[in-house]
Amino acid sequence: MSSKRIHFGVMLQGAGVNMNAWRHPSVPPNASINFDFYVERARKAEAAGLDFVFIADGLYIHEKSFPHFLNRFEPVAILSALAAMTSRIGLVGTMSTSYSDPYTLARQFGSIDMISGGRAAWNAVTSPLEGSGRNYSRAHPDHALRYKIADEYLEVVTKLWDSWDDDAFIRDVKSGRFMDPSKMHRLDHHGPFFDVEGPLNIARSPQGQPLIFQAGASDAGIELAAKYADCVFTNGGTLEKAQTFYRKVKDAARAHGRNPDHIKIFPGTGPVIGATEEAAQERLREYGKLLTIEDALNYLSHFFQQHDFSVYPLDEPFPDLGDLGKDGFRSTSEEISRIARERGLTLREVAVETATLRAHIGTSETFTGSAERIAGEMIRWIDEGAADGFMLGFPVLGCGLDDFVDLVLPILAERGYHDMQTQGTTLRDHFGLPYRESVYAHPADAAAEEQVPAMAGR
Amino acid sequence: MSSKRIHFGVMLQGAGVNMNAWRHPSVPPNASINFDFYVERARKAEAAGLDFVFIADGLYIHEKSFPHFLNRFEPVAILSALAAMTSRIGLVGTMSTSYSDPYTLARQFGSIDMISGGRAAWNAVTSPLEGSGRNYSRAHPDHALRYKIADEYLEVVTKLWDSWDDDAFIRDVKSGRFMDPSKMHRLDHHGPFFDVEGPLNIARSPQGQPLIFQAGASDAGIELAAKYADCVFTNGGTLEKAQTFYRKVKDAARAHGRNPDHIKIFPGTGPVIGATEEAAQERLREYGKLLTIEDALNYLSHFFQQHDFSVYPLDEPFPDLGDLGKDGFRSTSEEISRIARERGLTLREVAVETATLRAHIGTSETFTGSAERIAGEMIRWIDEGAADGFMLGFPVLGCGLDDFVDLVLPILAERGYHDMQTQGTTLRDHFGLPYRESVYAHPADAAAEEQVPAMAGR
Repeated sequence: MSSKRIHFGVMLQGAGVNMNAWRHPSVPPNASINFDFYVERARKAEAAGLDFVFIADGLYIHEKSFPHFLNRFEPVAILSALAAMTSRIGLVGTMSTSYSDPYTLARQFGSIDMISGGRAAWNAVTSPLEGSGRNYSRAHPDHALRYKIADEYLEVVTKLWDSWDDDAFIRDVKSGRFMDPSKMHRLDHHGPFFDVEGPLNIARSPQGQPLIFQAGASDAGIELAAKYADCVFTNGGTLEKAQTFYRKVKDAARAHGRNPDHIKIFPGTGPVIGATEEAAQERLREYGKLLTIEDALNYLSHFFQQHDFSVYPLDEPFPDLGDLGKDGFRSTSEEISRIARERGLTLREVAVETATLRAHIGTSETFTGSAERIAGEMIRWIDEGAADGFMLGFPVLGCGLDDFVDLVLPILAERGYHDMQTQGTTLRDHFGLPYRESVYAHPADAAAEEQVPAMAGR
Repeated sequence: MSSKRIHFGVMLQGAGVNMNAWRHPSVPPNASINFDFYVERARKAEAAGLDFVFIADGLYIHEKSFPHFLNRFEPVAILSALAAMTSRIGLVGTMSTSYSDPYTLARQFGSIDMISGGRAAWNAVTSPLEGSGRNYSRAHPDHALRYKIADEYLEVVTKLWDSWDDDAFIRDVKSGRFMDPSKMHRLDHHGPFFDVEGPLNIARSPQGQPLIFQAGASDAGIELAAKYADCVFTNGGTLEKAQTFYRKVKDAARAHGRNPDHIKIFPGTGPVIGATEEAAQERLREYGKLLTIEDALNYLSHFFQQHDFSVYPLDEPFPDLGDLGKDGFRSTSEEISRIARERGLTLREVAVETATLRAHIGTSETFTGSAERIAGEMIRWIDEGAADGFMLGFPVLGCGLDDFVDLVLPILAERGYHDMQTQGTTLRDHFGLPYRESVYAHPADAAAEEQVPAMAGR
């Protein structure tokens, strides 16, 4: 039943995704900048056969940002250090297409893929926070423009990664031939946003190319994922919603001529696990106590453009905010409003639940409970076409990961949905994805390439 | 005699700085992307008490680029991985002020400083290669403009690193107070080239700030170094030239109100070492054989804007090229022309010598010989005010570093100029430099800061 194996990623985000996770006794309070803690958690996940760790990111903070955002490692730096300290687990890191250079990004992730022996992936985001522009000497592009930039950015990066054929570097000591210049490819890319001549100054990496993750759930985000992504990370919601999203992405990939099995879909969830249902509820109450109501309202405002929720009565129904979240965390804000409406929650309930379980408000309700129930639900999501795996954003990374490994994984393994040993040695191997061939590996594309200089008038 | 300790850095540049070092039997031919080789060499240097390893960089390649430039690790990625695999040695990496963002750079080097426990340094370069712009969607700034950009860039980065006071993060689990907002500082920087609001999303690092290296030897480069650099890396040349440079930099630092002992000067050299003079000459011939004359002319052209040297007769005096190198590797091209003139070398001789020993043509003549003579010369350079240490760019990193550790260091140790154990645990400790205090640590500066919002009209 290996085709049914559930793939798992673990968010390494300081002490956990609960904004006050740092107060929990199972983590060091300085977790977000504690390298030893990152190593220990990554190795724990690796030993349990989980597929990858995931580093989220952000480019703007202010006084009210959540603790683990204020003081955190930069993704390339922490991933590369983790590459050296692990041997099998995949290493996924976020970098923004709105606030970085494709040449540098291609080098950094290419290097991590080499250092790790083929375990790197880039999570391409467009950066929703408007303040990011104020740290990067430029105006923050709006949602539509960000996705146009991202599309060209991904085209450039994937071409840069094909700068050298797999066998371009000969390194024949005797003759002194280091490389074959006929196997080097310049891009001569000239587009509306980027002009990149190339070639990249690093060879193709052990996976051919690092994998690409994508997380935007808007139509523009799905379109981008369908074209370029190997993996899609989403907010999940209910089983039905996840099934709809799953079909939509696979269909979009098919429309781009891709094999839908080659794009893996990971709803995000922050499971709260107990040996029994009651133990899980006790954990949830314990997590809730990490927060004050002010913390929770502050957390909520993050998804609604820093909206001031203190003007509303706490115990009245969640207010109608129109499209306040539309230009930032759009899908998350819509999800929060929908859940509040459907379940008739008050502002206080929405705030506490969101802040306790973070954005995974929908799936987290499903995945709060006994290990037996969580394992059963996960299997259902896989069997019923809602997911290829899950992105685990534990509210508290200490006890959360421990509970998952100790309580849930053995059940999944017994039912044939998990193996403590990952498949193969690269992240593509783990997912059963093929080696990424160069565009120049096929004669048709090679002919197309030859026309580029002529078309560009060179 | 510990004040006379000579500081050493080792360039980790693939197989070595000789363009065909990859052909030498003491290195793996794929050294430039061989992580295990990097780790092994860094640990060898660390065990011998050397102060730091150094990663050079470049942002543009073409068919005729040297082998180790065609296919190399990106500096942040390789340094961070090395941080995880070493425990005492300093980690210095190059990044360009013309082709990167200060917010990202400050995060990446701040992260490496944390991961390594205080061993990171940034080598700030302005990128001489004109082609770099063609990989970064922008026009390559000329020499003067690059240094203006660099000056503001360094101001922004050093301010970003002071975004949080040393004691800003409280992390009091009981009260839930994570940080003290009065100890967070925004920059609100608005200059001709950069607008950066801040604060940075990482705390001050174990060294207060990572160290800053600077390598430009033009007047603009020296001025930049005098303002910001902790260490200056230079091409060396003769003892007299190094003494002049040394005084110039220390005087310039003094003029900026700095303690001249707090800026350390490292002439670069590619020592060719033997147990005897004859053994060293044999090594030199061995290195020369790694190259053809075509390789050597190609190498030379790199410093003269890809000038085609094949039009000149090989065995006639080195041609007068005017100011051909002025907008790129200016100090190196001037040095090559000067040496050629003074020693009456032919084009062939200049090409082979440059390519064999790389750019350190002046100092490398001095530092080719028996271990006894090299140790004596190094001591002379220190005692006579020409250097605080040396940047070792071994033509071949395998046998070169081994010879240095095995043959030269024991002599220096015996004479009191070396200790197999570095001082302290941070790179600042190794150099005897004080912890870098925040600008906000002094009341006068704190008062000045309070005026910033008013001045900015906020």
